[in-house]
Amino acid sequence: MSQPDFFSADQAVIEATLEKLLPAESTPPATIHQAMRYSVFAGGKRIRPVLCYESARIFSQQLDAAATVGCALEFIHTYSLIHDDLPALDNDDLRRGKPTCHKKFGVAMAILAGDALLTLSFETLANANVPPDRRVRIIAEIGRAAGTVNGMVGGQVADVQAEGKPVDAAALEYIHRSKTAALIRASVVAGALAGGAPDQDVARLGRFGEAIGWAFQVVDDLLDVEESSAALGKTAGKDQAQKKATYPALFGIEKSRAFAQELAARAHRELDCYGDRAAHLRQLADYLVVRRA
Amino acid sequence: MSQPDFFSADQAVIEATLEKLLPAESTPPATIHQAMRYSVFAGGKRIRPVLCYESARIFSQQLDAAATVGCALEFIHTYSLIHDDLPALDNDDLRRGKPTCHKKFGVAMAILAGDALLTLSFETLANANVPPDRRVRIIAEIGRAAGTVNGMVGGQVADVQAEGKPVDAAALEYIHRSKTAALIRASVVAGALAGGAPDQDVARLGRFGEAIGWAFQVVDDLLDVEESSAALGKTAGKDQAQKKATYPALFGIEKSRAFAQELAARAHRELDCYGDRAAHLRQLADYLVVRRA
Repeated sequence: MSQPDFFSADQAVIEATLEKLLPAESTPPATIHQAMRYSVFAGGKRIRPVLCYESARIFSQQLDAAATVGCALEFIHTYSLIHDDLPALDNDDLRRGKPTCHKKFGVAMAILAGDALLTLSFETLANANVPPDRRVRIIAEIGRAAGTVNGMVGGQVADVQAEGKPVDAAALEYIHRSKTAALIRASVVAGALAGGAPDQDVARLGRFGEAIGWAFQVVDDLLDVEESSAALGKTAGKDQAQKKATYPALFGIEKSRAFAQELAARAHRELDCYGDRAAHLRQLADYLVVRRA
Repeated sequence: MSQPDFFSADQAVIEATLEKLLPAESTPPATIHQAMRYSVFAGGKRIRPVLCYESARIFSQQLDAAATVGCALEFIHTYSLIHDDLPALDNDDLRRGKPTCHKKFGVAMAILAGDALLTLSFETLANANVPPDRRVRIIAEIGRAAGTVNGMVGGQVADVQAEGKPVDAAALEYIHRSKTAALIRASVVAGALAGGAPDQDVARLGRFGEAIGWAFQVVDDLLDVEESSAALGKTAGKDQAQKKATYPALFGIEKSRAFAQELAARAHRELDCYGDRAAHLRQLADYLVVRRA
């Protein structure tokens, strides 16, 4: 399945906003800004920012603030990749076909570039053009989603600790929902909040985001098994080599694929009430589950 | 000079608030919460939280929110120590007389514990009991102070890059103001904002915090030269061994001491207009410059 037709237009908005929000490479100390930009502009698809942006579109035509909030999410996503790739964690040399941040700038600078992107994310949110009461809700949502209690860092810790050990379905669910789904859910929720959605819709979009985020990780596991190194731009089959907990390893490929489809259907049902206003978000959901083919 | 008499009462409030804000050690995944708590409760003086708390006291009697904001600052300070101590950066085995986080929990967990504390800091601020318009200002101030452009990470990068090279006065000023003074300034400013200070007073307290934060770092440099390993609880003389840029190395001990006193006097002048309301903050300023004797 190819990208939805609006996707590259959204990406262009996000790229321009990222460019504006990141300090110039020449701003002292230059090296850290070079490292931050190197990793942010290493070819990501901007899935979280686009989800945020299209979630806001259901409720508003003024999408500048949602683009800014989306970029803050991309900073967090990028920081997590930089730190996950470090020698002490996944020890990856390649990311999206290019040397990882620490291979290019050294371990010290990669640690600091990750720290800096996480910090810049919250500074960016604090200055976003969203009413203050909604701005603090967005920051709280994203902070929780990136944190240790059912959040991204918690999922990463559980993932590291599960390596080489037998993992049951409950443990795998915890890892995937925390490590990946939480921030994708927060992307959709933050977009809804930036767009001015009423509380009931914020909750509904949260359920949509949770389902789609979980499906996204299941598909990621499937891709790691099925695709070659070249297509992924990273070392494929690595999950298996590292004995990482994955859906295909636990349930097999067919059941994993069916589960991803079920989650996608669950996500779609949450959008039914919005009719055409959610057309883009619906296409995104399909793209994320049957994506990169 | 001994601690001001109110200091231990303030510390007790901060310890209780830190205890409340940090996830329990038993919360899954337990290891990360153990690592976070290990480093937060490793015996810090809580200088940033106490500055925040006492800055708020000039403007308000309701100090609960300022204590919460102060704890968020302590989380950032602690994250910076954990990451600075890592093998790729300062490679320190001891901190306050105890094994550093990575010596106790491994490098991977120390990286993640730092990330988690930085994230928890902003989540804590987003949920603090301060009016939303002031809450976002606090988050923006702290985010900038912890960041790369004249902020903590920028100062750390410049410090790392200056090692073993000749450093002039301008470069040294950049390092110290960014690495240390910025977050101390933000502590005072955040306290003023949490206490409901008018804009003019927020600016005045910012100048106070800047001066005291800078003086604090100069005194830190002096202590590293003058004190023994035992009294500091870390490897003394390490700055010199690593050829770090310091005030005594560049200007000598006497001139450095006089400069710290001049900064302290500058800080005091900013507080003149508050009379007795700033008595505690004045004592803190003295303690930070003539401290730990």
